[in-house]
Amino acid sequence: MAEHRGVRKRPFILLGVACAVVGLVLGIIIGFFAIPKSGTPWSAALTREGDPSVPARLQRELKPDNIRENLRTLTARPHIAGKEMDLGVARLIRDRWREYGFDSARLVPYDVLLAYPSRDPNRLSRVSLLEADGTVVVESQQQEAGISDPEAEPPFNAYSASGDVRGDLVYVNFARAEDFQTLVRDVNVDPAGKICIARYGKIFRGDKAKLAAQFGCAGLVLYSDPEQCVAEGWPVWPDGWMMPSTGVQRGTVQLPNGDILTPFYPANEYAYRLDEQDTNLPTIPVHPISYGVAVDILRNMAGPEAPVEWQGGLDITYHLGPGYTGPASSRKVRLVVNQDREVRTTYNVIGTIRGAVEPDRYVIVGNHHDAWVYGSVDPSSGTAVMLELGRALGKLKAEGWRPRRTIVFGSWGAEEQGLIGSVEFVEDYIRNLQERTVAYLNCDAAASGNFTLSMSASPLLQSLIREAAKKVPDPHEPSKSLYDTWRLKRPEEEGNPDTRPKINKLGSGSDYAPFFQHAGIAASSMSTSIDPAFGFGYPLYHSAYETFDLQDRFIDPDWTVHQSVGRLWGEMAVTLADALVLPLDVRDYAETLQKMTDELRDEHGSRLAAQNIGLDHLESAIANFTRATTTFHQSLGTVDKLNPLAVRAVNDRLMKLEGAFIDPLGLPDRPWYRHVAFAPSSVNSYAGQSFPGLADALFDIDNVNPADQAARWELVRRQLAVTTFTVQSAANTLVNNLF
Amino acid sequence: MAEHRGVRKRPFILLGVACAVVGLVLGIIIGFFAIPKSGTPWSAALTREGDPSVPARLQRELKPDNIRENLRTLTARPHIAGKEMDLGVARLIRDRWREYGFDSARLVPYDVLLAYPSRDPNRLSRVSLLEADGTVVVESQQQEAGISDPEAEPPFNAYSASGDVRGDLVYVNFARAEDFQTLVRDVNVDPAGKICIARYGKIFRGDKAKLAAQFGCAGLVLYSDPEQCVAEGWPVWPDGWMMPSTGVQRGTVQLPNGDILTPFYPANEYAYRLDEQDTNLPTIPVHPISYGVAVDILRNMAGPEAPVEWQGGLDITYHLGPGYTGPASSRKVRLVVNQDREVRTTYNVIGTIRGAVEPDRYVIVGNHHDAWVYGSVDPSSGTAVMLELGRALGKLKAEGWRPRRTIVFGSWGAEEQGLIGSVEFVEDYIRNLQERTVAYLNCDAAASGNFTLSMSASPLLQSLIREAAKKVPDPHEPSKSLYDTWRLKRPEEEGNPDTRPKINKLGSGSDYAPFFQHAGIAASSMSTSIDPAFGFGYPLYHSAYETFDLQDRFIDPDWTVHQSVGRLWGEMAVTLADALVLPLDVRDYAETLQKMTDELRDEHGSRLAAQNIGLDHLESAIANFTRATTTFHQSLGTVDKLNPLAVRAVNDRLMKLEGAFIDPLGLPDRPWYRHVAFAPSSVNSYAGQSFPGLADALFDIDNVNPADQAARWELVRRQLAVTTFTVQSAANTLVNNLF
Repeated sequence: MAEHRGVRKRPFILLGVACAVVGLVLGIIIGFFAIPKSGTPWSAALTREGDPSVPARLQRELKPDNIRENLRTLTARPHIAGKEMDLGVARLIRDRWREYGFDSARLVPYDVLLAYPSRDPNRLSRVSLLEADGTVVVESQQQEAGISDPEAEPPFNAYSASGDVRGDLVYVNFARAEDFQTLVRDVNVDPAGKICIARYGKIFRGDKAKLAAQFGCAGLVLYSDPEQCVAEGWPVWPDGWMMPSTGVQRGTVQLPNGDILTPFYPANEYAYRLDEQDTNLPTIPVHPISYGVAVDILRNMAGPEAPVEWQGGLDITYHLGPGYTGPASSRKVRLVVNQDREVRTTYNVIGTIRGAVEPDRYVIVGNHHDAWVYGSVDPSSGTAVMLELGRALGKLKAEGWRPRRTIVFGSWGAEEQGLIGSVEFVEDYIRNLQERTVAYLNCDAAASGNFTLSMSASPLLQSLIREAAKKVPDPHEPSKSLYDTWRLKRPEEEGNPDTRPKINKLGSGSDYAPFFQHAGIAASSMSTSIDPAFGFGYPLYHSAYETFDLQDRFIDPDWTVHQSVGRLWGEMAVTLADALVLPLDVRDYAETLQKMTDELRDEHGSRLAAQNIGLDHLESAIANFTRATTTFHQSLGTVDKLNPLAVRAVNDRLMKLEGAFIDPLGLPDRPWYRHVAFAPSSVNSYAGQSFPGLADALFDIDNVNPADQAARWELVRRQLAVTTFTVQSAANTLVNNLF
Repeated sequence: MAEHRGVRKRPFILLGVACAVVGLVLGIIIGFFAIPKSGTPWSAALTREGDPSVPARLQRELKPDNIRENLRTLTARPHIAGKEMDLGVARLIRDRWREYGFDSARLVPYDVLLAYPSRDPNRLSRVSLLEADGTVVVESQQQEAGISDPEAEPPFNAYSASGDVRGDLVYVNFARAEDFQTLVRDVNVDPAGKICIARYGKIFRGDKAKLAAQFGCAGLVLYSDPEQCVAEGWPVWPDGWMMPSTGVQRGTVQLPNGDILTPFYPANEYAYRLDEQDTNLPTIPVHPISYGVAVDILRNMAGPEAPVEWQGGLDITYHLGPGYTGPASSRKVRLVVNQDREVRTTYNVIGTIRGAVEPDRYVIVGNHHDAWVYGSVDPSSGTAVMLELGRALGKLKAEGWRPRRTIVFGSWGAEEQGLIGSVEFVEDYIRNLQERTVAYLNCDAAASGNFTLSMSASPLLQSLIREAAKKVPDPHEPSKSLYDTWRLKRPEEEGNPDTRPKINKLGSGSDYAPFFQHAGIAASSMSTSIDPAFGFGYPLYHSAYETFDLQDRFIDPDWTVHQSVGRLWGEMAVTLADALVLPLDVRDYAETLQKMTDELRDEHGSRLAAQNIGLDHLESAIANFTRATTTFHQSLGTVDKLNPLAVRAVNDRLMKLEGAFIDPLGLPDRPWYRHVAFAPSSVNSYAGQSFPGLADALFDIDNVNPADQAARWELVRRQLAVTTFTVQSAANTLVNNLF
């Protein structure tokens, strides 16, 4: 029985066990894999990489035709800051973002000091060449030929002093420090008390105005010399994209960034406003003219012949002056400037697509929307692209995508007058922005040419830019990547296409400055520009000829250049917003700092040594920084990506590294600039300067008068200590167990 | 057959299904509950509250006897900054922390300017009363009676100018601004060119020295008046804890915090050091004496009788001078000060217990270790407690506990000379500290009395302090909580024991200043003090009588006062380190700001209105801040505690709120102080001042000379805008979707 029972029970037991085991295994599998733990509903989302299909879908979604239509709309009317279309364009952008499905879109206005040329017929600004009896020989025009729109402001240099001066003319080349020094030291032509005429180019016009005032000029006339705006054999507008004889470059001559009345703080309703007298706006009249007028004013000048490098592209022999020679010797130049300054409202627009996982982390894309006239290059080509990028992201969002981090769109007002909208915004929200911003990606003029990319960026973003460019097809040769054509056309090492593509240092000159130089947020700025072989920027810059047709007929007839900028911009933004670990490469920072230190040693090492000033501590700090970045970068490979706090901790350090270069005391004599590693050059706000505190202290130090020399060397010592400390501090922020 | 078979198969099937179902269910249960997902091994740890048993275990572990032995060891030798025992005590602390099992403990030295009294017999500092022929009538002593240790420095005021001045004496009461004004305006006694004598008390002695120099005094003698250091009927040392006639209060007269040669930057090997001439160290000699000497010098003074409130506790009638009367009329006072200043090394000690979950978040507990002589109250009572707290935490760690966040221990050098060690440390690591520090919990003198708690704190920490005090038993009545006895003995509203206990504003005067005032880190400072009814601080302050016996015989014979301070400190530190959501209450900040604004309106509202300055914008910013804190605090109740990133995001905002009150430009004329809501008073560095930028601008504004009045009102306008903006900015940091 027992046996029998045994025999008969065994299959039951075996079957039961087998079924139980199968059930158990199945159950464990189901229990483990199929049922999310209610305690950790977020686990997967928190540690997931972004959807890898998104970047490619975004690229496909960006349509040349839409960008074209955007630009047509944006350039329909002049849209200078503070006038009707500042608000008009701002509203258009806000409404579009709402339509695209952004989570928010709103106007953020500031009340700032703006300047306009007087339109009173008795107070028109102008430059005239006069006979001794006052007869006008030639006079500058109130508008470019072919431009009749009453909304188009006449050419002017915003924030020039108003005044009516007449006197002898002196030609000062580019009005750089070295140009004035040549005049005074070498050829003994004193510009003091004279009306000086300078050609545009090489440095920021605000620096020209400052230097002219420093050297005592009574007034400054700026003009676009053909050498800087017409290449031989190339047709001028409207037959081509070179500057015609009637075109004039407008532009601000305000040097500090932001609203001049409210430095460091936002220009809001309760702001404390300086008296205009207590600001350092230009003290002399400054006014721009065309080369068609300039040639008549420069002809027959007296004085020594200008040095050969000072000879421009006009069909005359340039003389230095002062005044005229021969039958013209009694002629004088008269410069009249009348500008009205008033506090007016400019409008920023801020839109967001909120992050799903880390809504408190921002990737900001920005562009300004104000233009001197139609702005088909500057800035509306960028605005047209940004609108299309917003539309495409909105479409992805409608299809179910949401970025890990928040993407913020910023459309700035009054950039042309001095980065005013973006500066006031950054000053207003600086605490939030410094805490939350991963990076700021600027695009001012998206397409000022169709040659290849022109990029400036913090070292932190360079690797991201390169990787993104590899994923975007070239607009002219779609079989190649943007990266490949870019590094061929603009290699890091001139003439060597085997190097990486060139990425410039950030100076000032567009809206990245407040983010990068003041707030310490990693930033980049992108454009597609003309062939650097031309030796100048795009010729119609800031003229009324920046029209829709300029883009549609000459720069980007099939609109793929614009598209490629949008693709690169979108690729960068989405990568930054979606990557689990931020794609910021700290090693590039170390490499850049090392290169900067090498350059410093090469240029000033023996001069410093003669003063018993060594670079050892700086070099040791750079070595520590390099070591810290190497260790940190290695640690990224082993960070537990399934631990959201571990990932957040390394991302926090990546995000905050740029800010570690901010010295709250700012640079000597220009405390608003606070980045110790990079600033605009003090002698040219457009250009980026390495270790600016040191560079300024060392600038032309051998020629400083002996009484001031000791103080300058003390400043060098102090700035060397500050620079060393800041680099070491930045290294420390990457260290885990500092104590 | 089929049927048979059917009949015979059914039990098999049923059994199989049953077993499978049981197995499946069991499997699901096991799979779901018993197996941690390998993808989320961290999930529980990341979202777990701290072990609730830890605080109580910590409290039990803190032993009075250990604290007593610590203090005996610490006070065995004088340990002034920069001399042998600065390093000696620092090493002891480091070694103890290592022994206790800290994860790290190391010395962090700085090379700073320190000052010592000359020990050269020909250059001794002293105050003498001289006959006309130079005969010495009375002279101050080189050491307190009973003190013979050669390591004990003679009484001195560090950083006094050296000098040898003689002349007529003028009595200037407490040497406050109002005292000098009374002399000059009301009684026409000019202190200029005279040797002034002032009693200690009411304001920081460095402010006395500054004011004396401003009013032209040739030198300043400081003394401890019995009214500020002996209560009637209470025995003096060594029979009690009141000040005997030979006791002298030492102390610094340096006003700025930190190493005077390296403002804003750490005093490291490559620091740029100012020339001493370019600092604002005192320009006149200043020296402290006992009341036993002072009485002989103050007796027989000429000039008007001092006002009744100026009469001190000496058995004489105080006259103002200048000089002496009657037979003493030809007597002069001679003040000799010889100090040696040199750059010497002071040692901080930094120890850590690393956080298990958020090692990049710091809770810092700190105390200085340098003392003027033995320092049994200041600071070694605090050091003795801190050592025991470290031992207890080490024990918990050995038992398996590790805090969620990192606990950092800081033991500072050269605090007495001007918070030098802590300032240099904060300046050195400010980027890391601002990014990572949750709060700084200071304890200088743990027990300067045995009456009840004396607390100062940022509004953010007040709720934590109150809740912690509820969990600590009173040292005298263990059945009651510290909270209950504290609010009874020191109620918020004087005379009303139903209010909460009083927590003061943070001024300066201990090592929280660099953390709070400069770096914007929430901070608190704790002590147990004497009964405020005495009207003064502990009498033997900064004298050589601060010995082990003072604590053991008089202040805390059973050492439970020390223990209770340690318990409160530990309770706060562990709560901050372990809580999932940081126990910082933003609502208290709103309440405090509102109260400060009410006070501002009450005190200056009509004065402001007369200048057309309204407080509307400030009040609106305060209202926005209040609204933001309310909303934010409510959101804490609904935050998904199982989502570590959501918790980290709210904690980041809590942690960074204090920093939002930092203005990088600093306060007018004292840019190192950067907290817009709180600073030390400009006329008394010990006291906390609300809205200091505004308060300074408004200070005594009705009495400013008319030429400067307009500029002062402009400063008021500007500071009102800055204050308003800062409050609004701080509110913005709490907002989720700002744009």
